[in-house]
Amino acid sequence: MEKVKKLVDSKAFQNAILIVIIINSIILGLQTSPTITDAIGGVLDVLDWVCLSIFILEMLLKMIAERFFGYFKSGWNWFDFIIIITSLLSGLAVLSSIRILRVFRVFRSLKGLRGFKMVSSLKPLQIIISAIGKSLPGISWTALLLIIIYYIFAIIGVTQFGEVFPDWFGNIPKAMYTLFQVMTLESWSMGISRPVMEEFSYAWAYFVPFVLTSAFVMMNVVVGIVVNAISEVAEMNRKDEHEENGTTDIKEELDAVREHLAKLEELLAERESKS
Amino acid sequence: MEKVKKLVDSKAFQNAILIVIIINSIILGLQTSPTITDAIGGVLDVLDWVCLSIFILEMLLKMIAERFFGYFKSGWNWFDFIIIITSLLSGLAVLSSIRILRVFRVFRSLKGLRGFKMVSSLKPLQIIISAIGKSLPGISWTALLLIIIYYIFAIIGVTQFGEVFPDWFGNIPKAMYTLFQVMTLESWSMGISRPVMEEFSYAWAYFVPFVLTSAFVMMNVVVGIVVNAISEVAEMNRKDEHEENGTTDIKEELDAVREHLAKLEELLAERESKS
Amino acid sequence: MEKVKKLVDSKAFQNAILIVIIINSIILGLQTSPTITDAIGGVLDVLDWVCLSIFILEMLLKMIAERFFGYFKSGWNWFDFIIIITSLLSGLAVLSSIRILRVFRVFRSLKGLRGFKMVSSLKPLQIIISAIGKSLPGISWTALLLIIIYYIFAIIGVTQFGEVFPDWFGNIPKAMYTLFQVMTLESWSMGISRPVMEEFSYAWAYFVPFVLTSAFVMMNVVVGIVVNAISEVAEMNRKDEHEENGTTDIKEELDAVREHLAKLEELLAERESKS
Amino acid sequence: MEKVKKLVDSKAFQNAILIVIIINSIILGLQTSPTITDAIGGVLDVLDWVCLSIFILEMLLKMIAERFFGYFKSGWNWFDFIIIITSLLSGLAVLSSIRILRVFRVFRSLKGLRGFKMVSSLKPLQIIISAIGKSLPGISWTALLLIIIYYIFAIIGVTQFGEVFPDWFGNIPKAMYTLFQVMTLESWSMGISRPVMEEFSYAWAYFVPFVLTSAFVMMNVVVGIVVNAISEVAEMNRKDEHEENGTTDIKEELDAVREHLAKLEELLAERESKS
Repeated sequence: MEKVKKLVDSKAFQNAILIVIIINSIILGLQTSPTITDAIGGVLDVLDWVCLSIFILEMLLKMIAERFFGYFKSGWNWFDFIIIITSLLSGLAVLSSIRILRVFRVFRSLKGLRGFKMVSSLKPLQIIISAIGKSLPGISWTALLLIIIYYIFAIIGVTQFGEVFPDWFGNIPKAMYTLFQVMTLESWSMGISRPVMEEFSYAWAYFVPFVLTSAFVMMNVVVGIVVNAISEVAEMNRKDEHEENGTTDIKEELDAVREHLAKLEELLAERESKS
Repeated sequence: MEKVKKLVDSKAFQNAILIVIIINSIILGLQTSPTITDAIGGVLDVLDWVCLSIFILEMLLKMIAERFFGYFKSGWNWFDFIIIITSLLSGLAVLSSIRILRVFRVFRSLKGLRGFKMVSSLKPLQIIISAIGKSLPGISWTALLLIIIYYIFAIIGVTQFGEVFPDWFGNIPKAMYTLFQVMTLESWSMGISRPVMEEFSYAWAYFVPFVLTSAFVMMNVVVGIVVNAISEVAEMNRKDEHEENGTTDIKEELDAVREHLAKLEELLAERESKS
Repeated sequence: MEKVKKLVDSKAFQNAILIVIIINSIILGLQTSPTITDAIGGVLDVLDWVCLSIFILEMLLKMIAERFFGYFKSGWNWFDFIIIITSLLSGLAVLSSIRILRVFRVFRSLKGLRGFKMVSSLKPLQIIISAIGKSLPGISWTALLLIIIYYIFAIIGVTQFGEVFPDWFGNIPKAMYTLFQVMTLESWSMGISRPVMEEFSYAWAYFVPFVLTSAFVMMNVVVGIVVNAISEVAEMNRKDEHEENGTTDIKEELDAVREHLAKLEELLAERESKS
Repeated sequence: MEKVKKLVDSKAFQNAILIVIIINSIILGLQTSPTITDAIGGVLDVLDWVCLSIFILEMLLKMIAERFFGYFKSGWNWFDFIIIITSLLSGLAVLSSIRILRVFRVFRSLKGLRGFKMVSSLKPLQIIISAIGKSLPGISWTALLLIIIYYIFAIIGVTQFGEVFPDWFGNIPKAMYTLFQVMTLESWSMGISRPVMEEFSYAWAYFVPFVLTSAFVMMNVVVGIVVNAISEVAEMNRKDEHEENGTTDIKEELDAVREHLAKLEELLAERESKS
């Protein structure tokens, strides 16, 4: 058991798994091409099964190393477990629509990145992630605000334009999709707003405020993250500065002054006792 | 009266109202779907009236609590009052075009957010809002500049392209809408500029400068807000730093030095008096 | 002459001129509408001439105040002079195509802003303008780089796609316009790149790198201005901080310490002389 | 040899070459126009050959100055060498498809910029470049993440929409190009997503998450570079500040205090020896 744990935690083992993940990702890519599938489809299927077998073996080894129940403490392991189970089910079942679930196995590659993490320095990425984390309370409020704005505009859109433009404003989900498109500024005017304005001449009073409002809210999100990232960096710099130089030097100097004074005092006291 | 005030200000009462607002928002959403209206339209209408009645009750209770005239001191109360009055009017009148006014009642939800505000920490949002506030003088100048630029380009557009492209440059409002579309870069070239250039080959000298100018002005607004937000955060950090550490430590040290000196002086003075 | 100068520089005179500029701008806007021109076109023309006369009078008064040659030292005065001369010429000549030159008179409004400048505080705007000024050396390099990139891509575009797509890549100016459109990401793929790719399947290797390169260069410009604006603000804050608090306090304290020491020395010296 | 080196390194020589590069760039531009080629095509060809000869001469002179092998130590020289060789080959061969390689000679202009570099101050540009350099580890991670996201979405796209929309999702490269277009938000909804949704109603669950994810990743890149650029500037400012003022003054003051103390000690010691 200790041996298995050592093996599973070893760099060589993790790198081998990473290579299998990459090979499996390439196989999944190749399988999308009909010409390649026609030519060497059988070989790819076999290789895919080999990769899956290796993943199952890895899972079993980890389960042994972590005494089964310890295995399920990690979210990444749950992720592996679910992917393997769904892969097995989609393999047994001949339903082609479940094939897509296999693709998510590529996400395992992201797990492999953990291995890299220890190697390369990721300070800038960590700062941004930490900044995004700090921005989350602000962003969640902005998201709530955005949802309310979307909801109000969707209701207005459905009530006003729903009957004439069922594709764009037929119901609330459709209207929300259309509003998302408008928020990304994609064909909002030539594609959506101008045709609507031909029927409802006042429609500009619906689209222009929405464009301005959503642009303003999105800008807030970006500014918020930038500001948090910068204040994060400033915090780190200040700590570094504090440790390295500045105030400490002055303190040492002051200590030296005090030592001097203590010595003087001693001298005077000594002389007093003498006299 | 005191009792009513206590009730109205209680957390439980405010949360209950918030739930009614959310329920009412969902009802407004469901009413947009013809299939749902056909099936349970009557139930929804009754529920809508129930919600409205609760809002009216809330308004009356608040009026009692605030002695009627005090109620109208708050902008949010005016907002409630107007929404309830227009809802009542649109309910009595059978004019379907006034139905839309009801939708704005959803904005009441925003008022409910005040309740949340006290719960969650909103520091990042406050910084951005404060930064936007500080950016306002700069932005209002940019807005004035933008309006002048829009106006000049709209006049040029109408004079030059108005007769051949009445949909886009027929009059000043139409031209301004088209310029807003161009500013968002939506189909500005393939949709507007290229067709215009087929008639007026020099039209690029109208659109390209406008795109560059408006992009530049908008960039200024964004940069202005970012810079203000950062200087806001820097200001707050500096205050924190000042209070916590740094100079204070050195001052304490200096006080200790002075104490030492005072002691020395005392010693010397003592000896002098002795001798 | 002194009297004229006093009049011209007075706030009342400048505000009166500003109002005339605004009225003239509104007249120019109204003249674009055929219905209004049909109804009260004659009145508008008269008013336009009245405004123009006032501008001429203002120019003459300023010329008297500045002794004619002093008038031409200011760029704004040149601007006024040219606008008035072209307005006069377009009024005398019945060529309608020169009418457009009149529109630029609206730019005079911008000059009126100078009057405002002294009233309102424009610190945020000044920071951005100063930041843009500081960014100019970097931006001019980026602009040169962008022009070289445009030129290279335009030559490639014309040589490769010019014959098949004369509208987009017929000659270098046309190709540059198309590349500007691609840089703004407007219909770059569905409108330009995909049709080109139908003829030249390798065209993605032309458009995708151009999109990436130009986006990268533009991002540099924005980042440069943001960074300069922030460092500008930081500079100002540091100066404020230096003046207000911090190091000065500690210096005062240290001065007090030195005073103490000097006193001690004096005491010792005194005693020595005594003994 | 020393003389040749002196000549090659002289400002006059470098400027002369820069002028030849600019002339050659203009010739390359003129050659794209059929009308100009018909009129003075022969002259342009001759001038082009003259420019090429000058470049060859420059290369040979540099080779002599650097003793041939030293020449190939600089990347820029390799760049020159390859451009000249390919230009010669495309000149000898009459294959018109190699003509395009000549265009890259314009990139030589970039080399000419080195000459300018010493003239103009490039501090802001250097900060941004240094910031981008510092951002590279973070960006390379983001790039890896982006590639994985592209790959997963491409596989899903090909598997799901490939058969019905072969132009957009026929194979992995085509799907990746389409996803790049979607990332730039160009016609992502009206052009791609809505037609796909007519066949596969669930397609919004593919496009909307991709738009959000890619926008988020791109925002991270921009924020990362902004933050690094700002912290770079802050670092430089801090160094300047450290050198100029602040702590040094206090240290000098403290040194003065210690000197005072040393003097006191001396005085006391003197007196002791006396008594």
